[in-house]
Amino acid sequence: MSDLGIASRANLEPIQDIAQRAGIPEEALELYGRYKAKIDTGLLHERTGTARGRVVLVSAMSPTPAGEGKSTVTVGLGDALSATGTRTMIALREPSLGPIFGMKGGATGGGYSQVLPMEDINMHFTGDFHAITSANNLLMALVDNHLHRGNELGIDPRRITFRRVLDVNDRALRQIVIGLGGPTEGMPREAGFDITVASEVMAVFCLATGIDDLRERLAAITVGYTFDRKPVTVADLNAQGAMTMLLKDALKPNLVQTMAGTPALIHGGPFANIAHGCNSVIATNTARALADVVVTEAGFGADLGAEKFMDIKARFAGFEPSAAVVVATVRALKMHGGVAKDALGAENVDAVRAGLCNLERHVTNIGKFGVTPVVAVNRFHTDTEAELDVVIQWCRERGVEAAVAEVWGRGAAGGAELAQKVLAAIQKPQEFSPLYELELSVEEKISTIVREIYGGAGVEYSAEARRALERIHANGWDAMPVCMAKTQYSFSDDASLLGAPEGFTLHVRDLIPKTGAGFIVALTGSVMTMPGLPKVPAAMRMDVDAQGRAVGLF
Amino acid sequence: MSDLGIASRANLEPIQDIAQRAGIPEEALELYGRYKAKIDTGLLHERTGTARGRVVLVSAMSPTPAGEGKSTVTVGLGDALSATGTRTMIALREPSLGPIFGMKGGATGGGYSQVLPMEDINMHFTGDFHAITSANNLLMALVDNHLHRGNELGIDPRRITFRRVLDVNDRALRQIVIGLGGPTEGMPREAGFDITVASEVMAVFCLATGIDDLRERLAAITVGYTFDRKPVTVADLNAQGAMTMLLKDALKPNLVQTMAGTPALIHGGPFANIAHGCNSVIATNTARALADVVVTEAGFGADLGAEKFMDIKARFAGFEPSAAVVVATVRALKMHGGVAKDALGAENVDAVRAGLCNLERHVTNIGKFGVTPVVAVNRFHTDTEAELDVVIQWCRERGVEAAVAEVWGRGAAGGAELAQKVLAAIQKPQEFSPLYELELSVEEKISTIVREIYGGAGVEYSAEARRALERIHANGWDAMPVCMAKTQYSFSDDASLLGAPEGFTLHVRDLIPKTGAGFIVALTGSVMTMPGLPKVPAAMRMDVDAQGRAVGLF
Repeated sequence: MSDLGIASRANLEPIQDIAQRAGIPEEALELYGRYKAKIDTGLLHERTGTARGRVVLVSAMSPTPAGEGKSTVTVGLGDALSATGTRTMIALREPSLGPIFGMKGGATGGGYSQVLPMEDINMHFTGDFHAITSANNLLMALVDNHLHRGNELGIDPRRITFRRVLDVNDRALRQIVIGLGGPTEGMPREAGFDITVASEVMAVFCLATGIDDLRERLAAITVGYTFDRKPVTVADLNAQGAMTMLLKDALKPNLVQTMAGTPALIHGGPFANIAHGCNSVIATNTARALADVVVTEAGFGADLGAEKFMDIKARFAGFEPSAAVVVATVRALKMHGGVAKDALGAENVDAVRAGLCNLERHVTNIGKFGVTPVVAVNRFHTDTEAELDVVIQWCRERGVEAAVAEVWGRGAAGGAELAQKVLAAIQKPQEFSPLYELELSVEEKISTIVREIYGGAGVEYSAEARRALERIHANGWDAMPVCMAKTQYSFSDDASLLGAPEGFTLHVRDLIPKTGAGFIVALTGSVMTMPGLPKVPAAMRMDVDAQGRAVGLF
Repeated sequence: MSDLGIASRANLEPIQDIAQRAGIPEEALELYGRYKAKIDTGLLHERTGTARGRVVLVSAMSPTPAGEGKSTVTVGLGDALSATGTRTMIALREPSLGPIFGMKGGATGGGYSQVLPMEDINMHFTGDFHAITSANNLLMALVDNHLHRGNELGIDPRRITFRRVLDVNDRALRQIVIGLGGPTEGMPREAGFDITVASEVMAVFCLATGIDDLRERLAAITVGYTFDRKPVTVADLNAQGAMTMLLKDALKPNLVQTMAGTPALIHGGPFANIAHGCNSVIATNTARALADVVVTEAGFGADLGAEKFMDIKARFAGFEPSAAVVVATVRALKMHGGVAKDALGAENVDAVRAGLCNLERHVTNIGKFGVTPVVAVNRFHTDTEAELDVVIQWCRERGVEAAVAEVWGRGAAGGAELAQKVLAAIQKPQEFSPLYELELSVEEKISTIVREIYGGAGVEYSAEARRALERIHANGWDAMPVCMAKTQYSFSDDASLLGAPEGFTLHVRDLIPKTGAGFIVALTGSVMTMPGLPKVPAAMRMDVDAQGRAVGLF
């Protein structure tokens, strides 16, 4: 049965009931239909006081292109923790419309570990991404209007770094020329669209601790540079107020439920490459104010997702992660053990063993943040007992807590052992610390990540990156954390270097200061900020049935 | 006090209470916060049976650039009718975000005749426009992906007529070149963005009678032409299912309330030039199923708004308007009487009298549809009693029902007399018929409108329009009604020809078949489908205050 098929058979509770069990007072609830609600966090915090819940991050080993099921494990673990009587909340990213119409795939979990109503969550939801698109594009309309109306600030049209966004996979908008048609039609210049989740407004939205912090971060966004190379910010255009107004309702976190009735906050969804790849700080902190344990997720493998979660999100949000689940799959282990993509279905115990070097480095890395790792082997139907045993045995020998998770097929029951291991892990004394101090130079921060997390030997900067480093230094932006944009398939910047490569050099192509989000993106290799559609887009088979329900959505 | 100031002092009722009084069963209600709800019309119609309410259209004389307050009169009249004990509903368009950040001005009425919560309605509301933007732009991503992936249909990139949209005033996107950057980045071609309200998807959305009709109309949209000049439709790209899915929730009409607690449906908002300029058929028909009288509005003056309302909307929706209010103002009459814009504030009885020729033609035109006109003189604080008397006296002499409306300042009480006149008018026997039969040729339809409604002598077609006529004929599209795109300031296509010009020739520049919406747009003069921002956009003074409320919004 498809995820949508399973989801449509679920019995949803009215969201008011979910809210009540979660301790959310009715006056703080803004309903969006029967099964979705926004939470007025101002009204909530008057009631709940300070946040106190422990944060469990769900991350993963270096994944296969098909993904290892992090969202499914996050939901299943949340349900399994709930089943033990632990006050649990889940915090996840909102899905982008782009990939939904491109390739099959959402971000609402799968099988019997889904957040619901998955159809709504995957389509418009409560409109947050549309609000972000609007705020981003209002800013750009103001920028181009400024050029057209005399360019008082002296913005160099060749050095406008901010782009427009749409929540659609639209290759043809990557590189465009705008303002054509003569003097009444704007100032011609090169421009382009990114997908909404790649917008710095999205990153800002997800790192903001409240509406005032949101306005401040928006004001600090750099949109480009003047002819004499001075940064031009949103504050220079005085656009932060209108942008904040467009975002004020979106900033309230969205409450939904899992198939087992566990409350889940789904809010924000920044890219995991040019941004930090986790749900909003506001959602995580709201969940911490309501629950004893918050299960949340970060995009990509732990080298990217967990590192950024610790060094950017947790640092900015002011909480200390209590445990990190590293999702592993037999498939991914076999791939890292040298098996070709089309042979991953066949049993191969030796390859699993050979691929453990990848998992090992991720597990060790988690420890470097002073956080306890727990391995979750996300079981697929092609996995054999012998293969699973190798992983569990290996973990046991190294003193790493581990459990096989069967949450896709069995829901909470399939995550019971994992839940016990996680509960044990968060009881242990923690000594969380980010990997690096912000006072280090940008190069030192990058070197630290490459050496400590990636296992690489050194870093090489392109001429462009060197120039960017100089500008960053000249503008006094050195003290921001670094947001690595790197392939998720390898510890290195070469996607084909599987396992646990050593001695490699990481090539930094460019450095992009995101002064609103408050981090410096280090680009290694090419990063796609506007995906394209495949030859036969998934959109082709979608429709609405006679009962008004979505058809063909997963 | 500002409209926002007055609105923020209003006491809103929970939307469930409004719904209950309107006869909407609770199970048909989908809440969006406390004061907005979508109505599941499927569930509703099981309860209410066939629609029966009488439709009162609010239109206007040829307006001044500042507008004559049609929305305010619509809301005030609705409240005044409610106050008489008549079961009344109001149906209005949703406002576009574009003009809100450009110039001051919303579409939620004013003073003590507003729909609430005006702040929400003017900003994202329930996300309908964002859904329309998404559906429009998914279609265009599919079109450009088709070109990039081999162009099996043979679409001529120079003859793609459909454009992308954004709900923002962004001049620089009017004429652009997309697909630059080499073979992996799409096929280069000229393109452009319109504002969302100008999208044919918006027109389709507003004319659809249900989800199946929506899908059919979407499928019939022409996106461009092949190299051998055959139309390419949405159906050829098989995009109608996914587009319908993106629109399925948006298609449910939105319930809000006026300041006096009258239920109002605010749904859809097509342009009044290249589209028909009224709220959705679904909203109007839903209101007709619930109320005895439905007060609704059409954009621009009656030569455009009322004509299209009768000849396009009422014809497609299958209802017969029972009365048409023609909003007049002393200001507009003085302008048509020859007074310059900066002298409209001073008393000038003679000019008012001289300007009555404009009102007269509009009133006569309403009669040509077999609908009873009622003149509403929307009072402004600069109007004198002598000026108002001239208008009322003139109406009395001609046997036209008329009343002064003071709904901005006094709400329902200021519309009491107007309500009585409207109630009397709808009791009269009506013989509604559209102005022309669909079987006429396109030229005959246009000639009929120009002769009967505009008072013009003839029509001249540009060479481009002639070619378009041939293509329309060749494609068998003649039987569609015509949607005139003309300046709203004059009966002619010359905005400076005020009063009631005669003997003029209307110049049709081009004809655009909107095969999804089901009408042919006749372009006269230049029509702006993507507005620009002024030197100092209204966005600059907007923000959110410490209580989370919008500031600077009107």
